[in-house]
This record gives sequence, C-alpha cells and structure tokens, in this order.
Amino acid sequence: MNGFTNGLAANQQKSKRLIVDSPYVRCDENEIETTFHLRKNHFSRTAAGLKVTPKEHEYVFKTHLKPKKTGLLLVGIGGNNGSTSVGAIFANKKQMTWRTKEGVQTANYFGSVTQSATVHLGWDGQQQIHVPFKEILPILSPNDLIIDGWDINNQNLYQAMARAKVFEPELQEKLRPYMEPIVPMPSIYYPDFIAANQGDRANNTIPGHNKKEHLEHIRRDIRDFKEKHDLECVIVLWTANTERYTDVVDGLNMTAEQILTSVDANADEVSPSNIFAIASILEGAHYINGSPQNTLVPGIIELARKHNVFVGGDDFKSGQTKIKSALVDFMVSSGLKPESIVSYNHLGNNDGKNLSEARQFRSKEISKSSVVDDMVEANKILYPTGEKPDHCIVIKYVPFVGDSKRAMDEYICSIFMGGLQTFVIHNTCEDSLLATPLIYDLAILTELATRIQYSDSDKKEFRSFHEVRSGEKLPV
Amino acid sequence: MNGFTNGLAANQQKSKRLIVDSPYVRCDENEIETTFHLRKNHFSRTAAGLKVTPKEHEYVFKTHLKPKKTGLLLVGIGGNNGSTSVGAIFANKKQMTWRTKEGVQTANYFGSVTQSATVHLGWDGQQQIHVPFKEILPILSPNDLIIDGWDINNQNLYQAMARAKVFEPELQEKLRPYMEPIVPMPSIYYPDFIAANQGDRANNTIPGHNKKEHLEHIRRDIRDFKEKHDLECVIVLWTANTERYTDVVDGLNMTAEQILTSVDANADEVSPSNIFAIASILEGAHYINGSPQNTLVPGIIELARKHNVFVGGDDFKSGQTKIKSALVDFMVSSGLKPESIVSYNHLGNNDGKNLSEARQFRSKEISKSSVVDDMVEANKILYPTGEKPDHCIVIKYVPFVGDSKRAMDEYICSIFMGGLQTFVIHNTCEDSLLATPLIYDLAILTELATRIQYSDSDKKEFRSFHEVRSGEKLPV
Amino acid sequence: MNGFTNGLAANQQKSKRLIVDSPYVRCDENEIETTFHLRKNHFSRTAAGLKVTPKEHEYVFKTHLKPKKTGLLLVGIGGNNGSTSVGAIFANKKQMTWRTKEGVQTANYFGSVTQSATVHLGWDGQQQIHVPFKEILPILSPNDLIIDGWDINNQNLYQAMARAKVFEPELQEKLRPYMEPIVPMPSIYYPDFIAANQGDRANNTIPGHNKKEHLEHIRRDIRDFKEKHDLECVIVLWTANTERYTDVVDGLNMTAEQILTSVDANADEVSPSNIFAIASILEGAHYINGSPQNTLVPGIIELARKHNVFVGGDDFKSGQTKIKSALVDFMVSSGLKPESIVSYNHLGNNDGKNLSEARQFRSKEISKSSVVDDMVEANKILYPTGEKPDHCIVIKYVPFVGDSKRAMDEYICSIFMGGLQTFVIHNTCEDSLLATPLIYDLAILTELATRIQYSDSDKKEFRSFHEVRSGEKLPV
Amino acid sequence: MNGFTNGLAANQQKSKRLIVDSPYVRCDENEIETTFHLRKNHFSRTAAGLKVTPKEHEYVFKTHLKPKKTGLLLVGIGGNNGSTSVGAIFANKKQMTWRTKEGVQTANYFGSVTQSATVHLGWDGQQQIHVPFKEILPILSPNDLIIDGWDINNQNLYQAMARAKVFEPELQEKLRPYMEPIVPMPSIYYPDFIAANQGDRANNTIPGHNKKEHLEHIRRDIRDFKEKHDLECVIVLWTANTERYTDVVDGLNMTAEQILTSVDANADEVSPSNIFAIASILEGAHYINGSPQNTLVPGIIELARKHNVFVGGDDFKSGQTKIKSALVDFMVSSGLKPESIVSYNHLGNNDGKNLSEARQFRSKEISKSSVVDDMVEANKILYPTGEKPDHCIVIKYVPFVGDSKRAMDEYICSIFMGGLQTFVIHNTCEDSLLATPLIYDLAILTELATRIQYSDSDKKEFRSFHEVRSGEKLPV
Repeated sequence: MNGFTNGLAANQQKSKRLIVDSPYVRCDENEIETTFHLRKNHFSRTAAGLKVTPKEHEYVFKTHLKPKKTGLLLVGIGGNNGSTSVGAIFANKKQMTWRTKEGVQTANYFGSVTQSATVHLGWDGQQQIHVPFKEILPILSPNDLIIDGWDINNQNLYQAMARAKVFEPELQEKLRPYMEPIVPMPSIYYPDFIAANQGDRANNTIPGHNKKEHLEHIRRDIRDFKEKHDLECVIVLWTANTERYTDVVDGLNMTAEQILTSVDANADEVSPSNIFAIASILEGAHYINGSPQNTLVPGIIELARKHNVFVGGDDFKSGQTKIKSALVDFMVSSGLKPESIVSYNHLGNNDGKNLSEARQFRSKEISKSSVVDDMVEANKILYPTGEKPDHCIVIKYVPFVGDSKRAMDEYICSIFMGGLQTFVIHNTCEDSLLATPLIYDLAILTELATRIQYSDSDKKEFRSFHEVRSGEKLPV
Repeated sequence: MNGFTNGLAANQQKSKRLIVDSPYVRCDENEIETTFHLRKNHFSRTAAGLKVTPKEHEYVFKTHLKPKKTGLLLVGIGGNNGSTSVGAIFANKKQMTWRTKEGVQTANYFGSVTQSATVHLGWDGQQQIHVPFKEILPILSPNDLIIDGWDINNQNLYQAMARAKVFEPELQEKLRPYMEPIVPMPSIYYPDFIAANQGDRANNTIPGHNKKEHLEHIRRDIRDFKEKHDLECVIVLWTANTERYTDVVDGLNMTAEQILTSVDANADEVSPSNIFAIASILEGAHYINGSPQNTLVPGIIELARKHNVFVGGDDFKSGQTKIKSALVDFMVSSGLKPESIVSYNHLGNNDGKNLSEARQFRSKEISKSSVVDDMVEANKILYPTGEKPDHCIVIKYVPFVGDSKRAMDEYICSIFMGGLQTFVIHNTCEDSLLATPLIYDLAILTELATRIQYSDSDKKEFRSFHEVRSGEKLPV
Repeated sequence: MNGFTNGLAANQQKSKRLIVDSPYVRCDENEIETTFHLRKNHFSRTAAGLKVTPKEHEYVFKTHLKPKKTGLLLVGIGGNNGSTSVGAIFANKKQMTWRTKEGVQTANYFGSVTQSATVHLGWDGQQQIHVPFKEILPILSPNDLIIDGWDINNQNLYQAMARAKVFEPELQEKLRPYMEPIVPMPSIYYPDFIAANQGDRANNTIPGHNKKEHLEHIRRDIRDFKEKHDLECVIVLWTANTERYTDVVDGLNMTAEQILTSVDANADEVSPSNIFAIASILEGAHYINGSPQNTLVPGIIELARKHNVFVGGDDFKSGQTKIKSALVDFMVSSGLKPESIVSYNHLGNNDGKNLSEARQFRSKEISKSSVVDDMVEANKILYPTGEKPDHCIVIKYVPFVGDSKRAMDEYICSIFMGGLQTFVIHNTCEDSLLATPLIYDLAILTELATRIQYSDSDKKEFRSFHEVRSGEKLPV
Repeated sequence: MNGFTNGLAANQQKSKRLIVDSPYVRCDENEIETTFHLRKNHFSRTAAGLKVTPKEHEYVFKTHLKPKKTGLLLVGIGGNNGSTSVGAIFANKKQMTWRTKEGVQTANYFGSVTQSATVHLGWDGQQQIHVPFKEILPILSPNDLIIDGWDINNQNLYQAMARAKVFEPELQEKLRPYMEPIVPMPSIYYPDFIAANQGDRANNTIPGHNKKEHLEHIRRDIRDFKEKHDLECVIVLWTANTERYTDVVDGLNMTAEQILTSVDANADEVSPSNIFAIASILEGAHYINGSPQNTLVPGIIELARKHNVFVGGDDFKSGQTKIKSALVDFMVSSGLKPESIVSYNHLGNNDGKNLSEARQFRSKEISKSSVVDDMVEANKILYPTGEKPDHCIVIKYVPFVGDSKRAMDEYICSIFMGGLQTFVIHNTCEDSLLATPLIYDLAILTELATRIQYSDSDKKEFRSFHEVRSGEKLPV
C-alpha cells in the first residue's frame, strides 16, 4: 500500500482528521497530486541464468477530489442482488431499524470493503493505527448512488424483494413505499443464452429479435437516465442470469468493427450481455460484468478502449471461491500441497435455478477453476511440471434453501513425510447479502477510477487507467 | 518484500541461476551488502487532527554468505516432535522411501517454508516468476543440522519414535539403525510445572533440587555438544511439555540479576524452561521457545540482550490457530464481523495428556486468544470501543486419535443488513507432522539472522537484529 | 408394537375412522379392555449353559377413554422452555400465523411424537398403512392443557418470551395480550444448588430459608391451582436450571421418612427440586424431572409409591444425545466398533449460562454418558470385557448463539480389517423448539398413563403402572 | 424378533451354551422345528371407515442344522470388493497380523452382522442378555466359503489387491502367496452397458458377441466350479461395475420365455448381468445383485421361480444411504419434517470412475432415492399429499481419495413453530471395507435360507422362502 499518502492528503481537505505532511504530496481544493515510486523487477534470460533488474518507476497521480454525481443501472434489477441493492440503500439512507428475535437490527454496510474495512497505516509507538478505508480518499457512499435498471420480469421492486426472501418482513414493509414505485425497464431476452426454466419469468422484454433495434433501445434508456438525473457518470452492471459462453471467432466479435457488424446482422452469437455492454460503451457509460460469462470478447474490449470507458469483471467471488483463494494461498505458502479440492454448492434462488442447466453451469465452472490453476503455477517444488490437484466443482439447485447458499468443501493436502491434512468446511453464505456490498464497491471504485490520471515523472502526458478491469482487482 | 534483492544477489554467488543487477546491491565472495529503503509513517497528534508524516529510512544490510556449522539441541527430544524431527532428517538425508497402500512414499520437507515455499518476484511479460525461498539466500538445509537433546524419559529415539506413532512401521524399521543409538540426555523435572500425569515418564532426570547445579549441568551439556561437533552456532529449542505460567514479580525475575539470584536461591518459581533458557544464554546459544508458557520473563530477556543471543518464540501455531489467523483476517478485511468463534480441539498424544490439566491448558489458552484481540483493535467500524466477539477455546485429551489432532471450529459473522455467515470447519491436522517443519524453519532462520547486520546509511555502526523474536515472525 | 389393537378399538369410539375387529378387544362408551400377550424370555443358569425359557404372559388392560381435565405446572415457567411452552399453545389454539422472509408460517406441533408422528399398522396389499399416533387412543392435545408455574424471576411471560429470543417478533406481538398477564409464582432459590451467575435473576423467591415453610407454600400453590381450574389431574414438571447433584446418604434421603424429616430439619442437602417433588407427591400431583440432576432420591421414590403418583424423568434428550443414541445403535448393530466419541456443544441461553459452572455441568455430563455405556455392554464381540471407547462431552456458554444450540460431534469406528470410519456432525438444534414438544408429550402420556390399569388374565386385581418412569421411555 | 427361539434351540445342538425350553421348539440331530405365531393386521374399507382385523397366523418352520458346503462366485472378483473379499478371508483364516503405526492389527470381521453383531434376548433380572448373532443358529463362517470369480481384467488377485489400495502393504505381502495364483476367469464385456472409461480394463473377456455362447460359457464355468469343489450350494454375486438400466418391455424380457429367446436372438438390451443371472438360475445357483442396475427384470424373476433358486439384491447400502435411512427414520419418527436432503459423494476407486458417466450414475441415483420416498408416504401429518422434500444426490470421481469414499450430507428439518434443525455430516467411509462384510453376510444368509422350509400349521406342504429377496432385507 505504498500509494496511500495521496489519499490521506486528499482527506485533509475533507475531514481534517488526517493531515499528511510529505514532499511527495501536494494538494489544493480540487485536486491532489502524488508522486509515487513503484518498485518492480525486470527479467531477462541470459546465458548465466535469469537476470533480475529491480527498477524504480516514478509516477505522478492526479486525483480530482470531488466525486461525480453517479448513476448505477443494474441489468437484472428485479433479481435477488438487484432488489437487495436498491432496498439496502433506502434502508441505510433512512437509517431504518427492524426487530428480529435477537433484538433490533439497524441497516449497515457490512461486507463492503469501501464502507466497513480499515487500512493499516503504521505504529505510532504505542498502538497500531488503522483508519477506515472510506476516509483515505473522498469516495461516494452507496447512499449517493442513483439506481435504476432493467429486468426480463415486470414485478415492481417491492414484489421482487418479497420474491427474493432476503429481507425480514418488517423491513420489507418499511421499504414498501420506496420500492413499490420502481418498475424495471423492459430487458432483452434471447432464450438460447439462459436456462429454459427462465422462460416463465420473461414477461417484460423488448419486443422483436432485431438486435440492432435492441441496442438502440438500451442506448436510449441509458441516455434518458443520464439526462433525467443530470448525471456525470453512469455505470451499467450486469447482475442478471449467467449466460452460456458465446463463441469467440474471427468475423464475429474479434474487433470493434466485427462486433458492431454482427449486431447489425442480427448474428445468433450476440448475447444480451453483449448488447448491454456495447450500448454502455457507445453511451460513455462504464460496464461491469457481475456474472461469469465471457461478455467481454476482444471486439468489445477494443470498442471500450476507443470510447475510453471502463469495462471489466467476471463474476462476484463472495462465497466459496473467495474463501478458497484465501485457504489455498494459506496452504501453498505454508509449503503444504493441496492434492484434492472438492467444492459442492447448493442454493435455491433464481441463480441456482438458472445454473441447473449444463451450459450456464459451465460458464460458472470455468470462472471458479482458475484460482487453483494459479496456485499450481506458483510452486514448482510442490507441483513439478504437469502435476495438478484433483479439483471438482458442483452447483445444485435446492429450492428449500433459497438465497441461503450452502458451500461444502473438502481440501486434502499432502504434508510432511507423506502425512495428510484434511479440511472440511460447511459455509452458510447468504448469497445476495454477500454479493450486494461488492456491487456497491465496484461502482464506487469505478467512479473513483474515473477521477484519477497518471503520468510519468515528467508530467507531460496524463492518462486514465487502462479500460479493462477484473472484478476483483480494482486498485485504488 | 521490498528487501528481497539482497537475497537474489547472494544467490548468484551460489547457484548462478539468478543474477541481480542493481545499484543497491553489492556483493563479493563472502558478503552481500544491500541498501534498503524502508517507508514508514510517523504520527503526531495535532490540534487539527492526526498528522501523518511518511518517511523513508535508508538502511544498509550486510549478510555473510556462508552458513555456520549449526547444532540444534531439543528440550524434549524423546517427544513426538523431537523424535519426528530427528527421524525425518535421517529419512531425507538417506532419501528413504517406504510403501503405503497408496504407493511408494518418499521423504520430503513439505510444510517447511524455507524448504517448500516459493517467493513471487514479478511478471516477466509472459508469466509470473516464482523462485524457491531457499534459493533467495544461502541458508542451511535441515539435512545440515546436527541434533541432540534432553528428555525426562530415557527411551532411545527408536523407542520414542514407536511410542509417537507418527511414522509408518516400515519407515521406523529403516530408521532404526540411526535412531536406536541416540539416547536423550537427562533433563530437569520440577513436578509443579507440568501435569501430574507426566510423573511416570520422568525416569531420566538430573538428580536433586538444587537449581544452581541444574543450571551448571545444562551449561556443561551445551558446551560439550558444541565442542564435540566443533559448532559455530548452537540453538536450544524447547519442544517439551507446556509448563504452567510462572509468576512475574519484582525481586524474582524482572532483571537479569534477579533471575540469576533466584536460581542461586533455588526459588520455587524458577521453571525448568527458565533454567534451559538461562543456560543457553550464558553459553552463547540461541533459545527458542516452542511451547506457550511464559519462559521469557523480563530478566531473561535482559540477560539475552547482554549476551547478544537471540531468544524468542511462544508456541508453534501450526494447526487451528494458524488457520484462524488467516480466516479472521480474511473476514475482517472483507468487512465482515466475526461475532462468535468457537474452537474445539482434541488430540491423543502426550501434549494432549499434559494439557488436560487446568494450569497447563491455561498457558495454551492465553497463547491462542491473542489472534482475535488484534483483529478487534484493527477495525473500529465493526467493533466500536468495548465490543468483542465471543471466543471460546477447548482442548481435550482423547487417546484414540493419537497424534492425529482434530480441530473443530465454528465461526459466525454478522454480514450485510443483519445477515449471518457461518463457517464450520473440521480439520484433521497431524500434530507433529505440522510442527516439525516449523522447528527446522526456526533453527534455519535463526542461524541466518546471526549472519545479518545492519546500519544506518552512514555505515558507521553495524548492529545485529534485536534479540527477542516472536516464533512466528522471524524475518529474513 | 403388539399392543396397538386396544388403541384402535378405543379410537373407533372417537373418530369412527378405524374399526378394530378382534376377539381380544372389547369396548364400551367409557372403557376399552384389551387382552395382550407379552412374550418374554426367562433365563436360568444351568450346568449345561444358559437356559432360555420363552414364556407368554397374558395381561388385561383397561383404559378409561375420557381424558382428564389436566393442569401442567412448570417449575421455571419464565425460562426459554417455559415461555415457549405457554406461547406455542396460545399460538396453536388461535391458529396464529406470522410472516417470515420465507413466507407465512403457521403454528404447529412438529417435534411432538403424540401430535406429529405416525404408527405403522401394516400392509393392505397395495400400500403401507400408517395412522397418526394421536388417533390410536383418545389423548389430550397440548391445546387442552392448562398451564401455570413458578420462576425465580418476576418477568411476565411476554417479557420472558422476548428474553428467550425463540419466537419471531411478529408472533411475540400477537401473543402479547395472552402472555403479558401471566406472571410466574414466586419460586424457591437455594444459591448453593445452581450457578452463582443465576443470582441476578432471583428476584421472585419465597422468602426465608425454612424448607418446611417452602414445602407448605408450594403445596398450597398446587392446591390453589387445582381448585381454581377444577382439575382432575395435575402434573408438575421441572424445566428450571440444572442443579448440582445432592448427596444420597442414609439418614438424609434414603427413605420417605428420612426425606420428610430432613425437610423439617431444614437440611442443607435438600434441593429446591426435592421440595417441588415432595410437594407434588403430597398433593397427588405427578412429578416429571426435565433436568439431569438426581432429584429422585430413594426417599422421594418411596414417597411417590406410597401416594400412588408418577415421578420420573432425567433430562430431555432432544439434541445431540438423542441423535447419539440413534447413531451409536446404528453403528454397533452394524458390527462397527465406536472407538472415540467426542461431543462438543455450545449454547447461549440461560441453560448454557448455568451449566458453565462445574458442578451443574457435572450433572449434565453424567446424564449424557450413559448412552455409550449401554452399548459397550451389549456387544462383547466388539468390546471384550473392560474395553470402552473414549467418550468426551463438552458444553460451553457462547452468548451469541442464544437458544440456537450447536452440537459438533466426531465419531470414529474401527471397521473391517483395521479400517476406520469417521463421522463428523454439525447440528444446529434450536434448544427450546426441540425440548418444548417433549414437555407436551410427557404431560400427555402421563395423563394417559393415569387412565390405564392392568391385571393378570384372571382380572382379579387391577393395578396402575409402576410410579417411576424414565423421561424417555414412557410407554403407551 | 419373534422367531428367534428356533435359533436358540438349534444352537443347543452345537454349542451347548444356550438351551431353549419351549413347547414350540422341537429339535433333533438334523433339524429344528419351530411353531411361530405371526400377528398381522388385515384391512378392509367399510362404509364406516377402515376396518382393521388383527389375525394371528401359525407357521411351522423346519431348519436343517447342517450348513451346506458353499461356493461363492464373484462377478468382478478383480475389483476392490472382489480382491478385498478374497484377501480378508485368507487373512482371517491364517489369523494374520500386520503392523500399523498405531500398533499391531489383527484380521477381523467387523462390519459383518452375522459375525460381529449381537441379538438382545431379554433381561435376566440383573442384566440385559445379548448373544452373538452367529450363535443363534448354525451358519457358515466367511472362512468356510470357497471363492472364485470372473473379471474383465486379467490381473491376478495379488495385483488386483495392490491396485485396490485397500490393505496395508505388509498385509499385501503376507497375502501374496495366497492371492497371486488366483486369476479371474474371463468375463463378459458389452461396452454399451458400462462407462467408456472401462474400456482399458477389458482385456480378459469371452470373445465374440454371441450372447447365447456367452451364456453357455458362464454356465460351464459354474458347473466346473461346483464339480471341482464338490459343492452343495453355489451363490453368484455381482460386485462388478454398475451397468446402465436396460429397457423393460414386452417381447424382450417380461417373461422367462422372452428373456431366453432374447438371449438366443442376441438382443442388444440383454446386459452382461442378465447373462450371469440367467446362467446362475439355469445351473441352480443363487444370484445376488450387488449393484444398482435393474438386472432382475420380470423374465428373470419368473425364471428363478421356475428353477427354485433365490435371486435378489439391488446395491449394497453400506455408507451414506445406509446412514440416511437411520437418520431420516429418526427424524420423521420424532415428528420432525425433513425439507431438504442434499447428499454429495466422492470416491476415487474404479466404481467412482465408472459412475462418472451419466447413464451409470442414473442407476445409482434411482437406487439411492427410494429411502426418502418411503418416509414421505409414511407420515401424512408432516407431508400432506403431494409434498416432498428436496432431495439431491451427487457422486463425483476424485482419484486422490481412492477407496476412501467421502460422503457429505446436509439435512434440514422443519421443527416446532417454524424453526429449523440443520445436520451437516462428513463421513469418511472406506468403500470396500464397508461393502465386503455385507457380501459375506448375503452369502451366509442365502445359504441359511436354502435350509429353511415352512408350512401352515397343518404341516401338509413345506415350501422354501420366496425366491426374490431384496439385498437389505434378507430375514433369518
């Protein structure tokens, strides 16, 4: 966290609680400028072996201090994540409380890194100093976000929230006056991309199969939203059904031109999420993919680059996979060798229902596998070339558990002298309550990223961050 | 890992595989000198708020490249960790194999960070570069260690290994010619410090209750060992029974003088581990505490400082507590709030038997609690002042499971909007097979630490590292 | 279930749904008379070996068909079981519903064997015939019970229900008008018998330490209750704190006379539950012990016999121990040999708080151990004389989990040819929701037992069932 | 266990330890005759309701006391169950021991009900009387069985045992001289019926695709085996790969004639297990099906009836499903309502590999589902018509775990007043070590069944038991 000092400086403008005193940080009312030294190794293969040349790069970061007025458009706003996202913001804004048998519960933003995590700054001689993440730099609060969205189902958000079974009934009633008026905009439904069992839900769709018209329709929705709320920044986030993978082939979607032509030609392999991503880019809105499908084909990435918007993300990792990353890293960095990793999941919400078909599950499976592949590459002592642990992922649809997803894992490691260590985990991880705070974080960090520019130490040319971001790795 | 470059440079002396090209690294046949810039925040309280002043400190590190001839003396060499430590080195040196129903097993050093972990150096444009930890700097291999030790029981190490039930019978037989000749040196037994159920084992003890004579006896053992093997470095490591806490009071053990006077006065509150630590220090041997008792009272630390030896350690965290650190850190840094952490353990080896008495368990319990306290301090958003999660630790003695320790944990977190996430873990963690690699690592890293000196950038005065190290945090 | 036919016959009086046609069953408007043949082995040791003589005993059972008007007095009515028992009856009587996020929930009697279990009658050629347990014989419904009770705390039952955190808030509010008027009668508090941490709760106690006066006070309470509601049958049930064991010694409580004399003498070792049991017996009320302490000392059993009332029970086995019985029986009758059984529990209700002291826990531990001892006795192939599995039971107080008790068990069995089978179980077992239906069942079956008499086939002398019943084994 | 007395009587002939003194039991040197009264309800639907007529049926049982010389032919003798079955008998006969790190292990028959379970006879006034199951009636010991068999792979049983990874290496070596000479007879391989991944193993098959010749070949094998060992009783037991289901259609296999004609016509839908079953029946050998496929089509059952041999069995339930039966029964008979039952399995032996294909898994899935369906039917209070719990079964092939099968289950029950009880189970259940004792039991009980005849009380006509037996329900 070498670069935190720019945050602290910015912060003094705002809260006056933290004052940064550093020659590398300069700041005025509008902007903070930070000089940052990145140390990085360069490698070259020589006759004598691998040559490592540590280098220090100096960058200058300029961050506009004032957050932009930001709108968030959710694809799948009527789903569990969607209705939970919208409802929880009202609940927090109005500081709602509700009774549970354990006592009175208050709305909160637990699980949001931007809202609930802290950053370690150092030791002051007597104690460790930690400050809230949100005090480092001026960022949006979820409360500041203006939200709307699309859904293939026409239930209003009060109905959608009841269907989701995520909030307690008393909270649902308190939210009713705010949620009932919100009705999702009609969305795009191409049955081939999601499970057949979603057909019943699709009663709120843009008519016809002309993909070009669909694109225009969505673009208009984005423009209208921006205008209506006088927004400086719009973010479109896919939290709808996982689609099957699309083909990625030359002539179809390998360049910006190809993908636009394919839309015009009404090509079968253009998915709903492709349309939403393209519409966003063309309207200057940033696009975040919260499901595991391969929306971001090369042509769409090229298009984003041209239009200078951010696109990124491949699924939220909030439950089993997130903790798998932590555990596998723990094991391998302890010199233990995972030999078998078996991950069973079941859930009863609509995500589970959609994933119960093979092609949609396949998208999810690919997304969940990579964490283990990385670990195998990282340690050739434990995994001499070619060796891999057994790794098995199962997702089942079990209606009774609803949104209360269950993950059951078994990890077996080879340890010292042929011994085995076996971890068995049962994890009850409320699906939407874990994913929703990540939706806020992604939106908030995307907005922040739009305010940051960097240049080499000469300050000649300031650039934005690269336009493709992975959902989990958005840096500050 | 800002300081890794000195390691790379050193390494080029040795393996010629990695060549470091940096103005901050200079190295000759004997020594490597590295300039290192440590960035650190300084804090001061001002009227306007907390003032943070980032500063960069330049240090120069000098590391002798040639590892010293090192001896390791284990207190409790006949215990499970002790016999496993000795046996596994023979098995690795001789590259022993043995049959299991799953196939032929080969001796290894899995679970040792120095032997089996890798370090990430960077991205070469095509792939991530990881190198084995042991290739960064010249360090000892466990195979290089010369081991001997004391035990209150007189079984030779072949018998001890059989009693431990850690190695397969075929391996035990292959090890027999190496293990049978090794008989533990008599040790110190003060019944008041360990569980009464250990009385039967105590048939190999230094006679009398005169603690001064005991100290001299142990000092002589250390001197003889050093001479016999012509050692440059001796490390004494306690892997014997957990003792009850001793009183820490003025007049008894608050200064070096007090503790030495207390030994002379045969004071009741001087424990066996105190005697071993003092003997080590006075003989210039480093002392590592592998059990949770409070051996390292202020007087002993002062003594170590005077004699310029390392002392450190408070228990091996190899199983439940180690993974608890990883999980709790994962949760809190995700903005989730652990509310209840319940940790049950059972084991059937002699450690479990000794811990089945209340006073010895209390030492263990204190050691295991701290991980959670730190986390509470680190996040005042989740834990406003005064709040703490429920935290409960149980250790039971269940002979049937032997050395195959079982840890059963339940973690409950408050998540977004009043939801709960519950993790349930069953962890079969072979006790000695997890702890033994850490014994090697501690010895190897302690030897390395004796070869490193550092100074300010002026290079006027080179100093050794501070003499008190925590068992888990020995830096490179 | 050889004796079921009398039930069927009785039932035809009531529901006309089942008609029994058998020469062994005769029945009129008031009574059913059943001839029952019990087959039983008799054993004698002879020179040639053990001689087994199967014999058939003919009994005649007379059952009065009309259930009595019955009152249930709970000791500890303000505790979690107590307030849940009272509240759930109102909720069922009024057919209350309440919303949960999963949907509308209706009051039910799940978990009550008398109300929710069925009995298998046979195969009719096409399907298995099962009938509800409650249709076999006319029995009370929980809705018919009139409930009152004592508590050492003076909160009314609405407050007690809120403190218990068992029912959802909406249900609590619907129950409020029924629960608020009920205030527990003052109870007996002898601090030495329950945990010191219960002292704060004890604000509703009968004054003084004169045990004779306390006995009279409780007797008067029982008489008043009986008169006020014009009851034919009164049952007193202890669901208050687990007490420590009392001494059982001659001169104190070995005969009816001794125990009465000890009350008069205000003897220290006479516990509150002793007083309640004696008061019940002397008032002709039946006494059921729902906690593990040894209330039913020989003197009290003798007293019950003299007064012809039922006394019985030693703890509710609703969670971990109940399932342990099922699992251990499963294992041993499969020829598998349990070697290690480790049972951890934690709970956060007041029961857990009270059991966190050693003497109270000891009562619980004894009660929970016996299930395994029985199994060892039953199979001398697996357990040659003297062998026993390791068996370890832990109960911890973890406030956060409240009434939602967690049981974590590990069973290890030796199987064929030296293999091991390991079961690990995590069981979330709502404490009061599992125990309360058993309270109803015990009351209902006790009332039924008062209506049954039996004689030998000569019908000369009809007797009641024996007066001591174990809590789990009340037969129909 | 109403009928046990005949066993006791028989036993007095043998062990003289138990003497039965009963008018219903008569016995001489060769035979025991027992009169048994079976009480059973008859049902009829009347206008007034369901009429129940309890009736007592008197039967006379004649049991020949002398066990027959019995041979067991295993289909799949080279598989894990097969090689374990053969090896363990040698190990028990020779009373072999082998060293493990926990100590010396002795061969045993744990897990076999006939060899290791006991039967409760009654209470002798002081203690419960249990006798070993095997002392009730003269039955074979596994040691008495003569075993041979077929396999599609040609490894000898020493090689097969090594491949199975079930026994410790030292035991494998001790068994080598006995196992190495045994080479499986060539078997039948029709690739369409088992997974494609079994193709590599199929190097020991009867040539050609003429099913009629295959039938004759197997018949000849059975005849030769019988003659060679001079056997009185031959049992053929399928413990080979699970096959896919065959069609069951008129014209193909609905009558004995059809199935024989279909063999002659070389019909595609005649499976290998059909051939083995038919061959057995035609040779008078009893046929037990130890896998879940539907071998026993109506035509084969009719054929068995004609030839008066026993056929039966549908899969061994030794692990997860067996304990599921016990747990679900426990729950429902406690009045708790299972709402969701999720059963995950993984294993790494060849059974797992074969089941990793969809059609073979389907056979297994059907077999594992029925236990829950029965429970739903049994309780209409908990499951009003039409309601069913979610039930999900997954089996995955995870090579690393080998024969050490892992079952992970989650059961959620609705309990009292809308509460939930959740059981989570991790079960490490050694696959072949649990199944093999059941193979012995099935063979032993089948042989016993051939010695029992029964008649009505008039003793006019004595019959054998019905020829179709379910694998789990073979009565004594």
